[in-house]
Amino acid sequence: MSADLLSHIRIVLSHTSHPGNIGATARAMKTMGIASLYLINPKKFPDAEADARASGAVDVLRRARVCNSLNEALQGTVHALAVSARRRELAYASTDARSAAQALVAAAREGEVAIVFGTEMSGLTNEEILQCRAAAHIPADPVCSSLNLAAAVQVMAYEARIAALGATEAPPGESPSARHEDVENFYTHLEQSLLASGFLDPANPKRLLPRLRRMFGRIRMEQEEVNILRGMLNSFRK
Amino acid sequence: MSADLLSHIRIVLSHTSHPGNIGATARAMKTMGIASLYLINPKKFPDAEADARASGAVDVLRRARVCNSLNEALQGTVHALAVSARRRELAYASTDARSAAQALVAAAREGEVAIVFGTEMSGLTNEEILQCRAAAHIPADPVCSSLNLAAAVQVMAYEARIAALGATEAPPGESPSARHEDVENFYTHLEQSLLASGFLDPANPKRLLPRLRRMFGRIRMEQEEVNILRGMLNSFRK
Repeated sequence: MSADLLSHIRIVLSHTSHPGNIGATARAMKTMGIASLYLINPKKFPDAEADARASGAVDVLRRARVCNSLNEALQGTVHALAVSARRRELAYASTDARSAAQALVAAAREGEVAIVFGTEMSGLTNEEILQCRAAAHIPADPVCSSLNLAAAVQVMAYEARIAALGATEAPPGESPSARHEDVENFYTHLEQSLLASGFLDPANPKRLLPRLRRMFGRIRMEQEEVNILRGMLNSFRK
Repeated sequence: MSADLLSHIRIVLSHTSHPGNIGATARAMKTMGIASLYLINPKKFPDAEADARASGAVDVLRRARVCNSLNEALQGTVHALAVSARRRELAYASTDARSAAQALVAAAREGEVAIVFGTEMSGLTNEEILQCRAAAHIPADPVCSSLNLAAAVQVMAYEARIAALGATEAPPGESPSARHEDVENFYTHLEQSLLASGFLDPANPKRLLPRLRRMFGRIRMEQEEVNILRGMLNSFRK
């Protein structure tokens, strides 16, 4: 992943009514590593409510650029994505958030790019959408499709970050994984314990041992965990 | 996609301080088609601020269930995912939000599942995380990793919805997943067995029980497997 790609992304809010949403947007951006905020004619900005909702991202607000038009906010960009809850007749064929974010991050290799959001009440105008290069929608429930503005920014910024990261992370191993031979020794130990306790009947073993392998196999045991399990088995035999 | 899968998901908020965040959570859920909200000892609820921030999702608040403990909120679930900003020493190896949501939706084919969020200030306790079956983190910027609570719910609910939209495969589980209460009964049984065998010293328990929860939690046990394990424990005590 390249933090560079994220530094090429600007978030653009058009004609935002509530300063709290601007603050919450700043926080949503910063948690995803995006720092550049453009505001087109915000109703109230700067504002104490914006600062309060920004939490640790007040620096994003302080460096925000206030513009008079979308055209001004998009100066210098090589790609701009209009985010819209609804599909419109006159707009582009809208793609889903994930595909759109991948295309945006690909374009960010070439230069500055923008993700553009409209007002809380009515979103972007058709004229604004047509100034962008593509349109995206977040696949919401049709029954209640209107995400809060900052929540929509959070989802798009998250998708942009994941696209920049390049892939989902591998789950981290915290202590060394048990080696094959250690795991096999545990199974032998378990089998002996179950024979001794009478739970495993050698004359009629059924599918007990394969079932136990299937179950413990899903743990993907660490070395230390094998030691704990074998210690438990020893304690039971005393 | 099956809307059924989304109806099997409950969002659990533990000890939420700000009612506005509960309202914003309700809205975030509803936009993604998730309706079931459980609140563990919320500081202020119901509350006018929650209603205001819920916008069109006040119905989700009205039907929210208030509980006294996480154990109560998880009754009847076959999978529970702890969402945490940080990785902890003794918790499960945390997987990223996307993979975790896919596993959650797969489990939702078998029954109720939960996504669990902690307080605004300190997240979930280790004890709470260990009552869940798995842990997930949203891959945030380490410089500013603390998402607003409702923003974190929005991301996880979004990932769950996308996973449900794309869900086509049959789940790998062969027999039904164990319910929360069956798993808890197994842990109680295990603890008693280890006390009786002397492996667990009540005067000096160290971190044995949390370690065992962390290990067995990764199995995501089936009902029949819980029965086998408890049968084994009984055989050892004879």
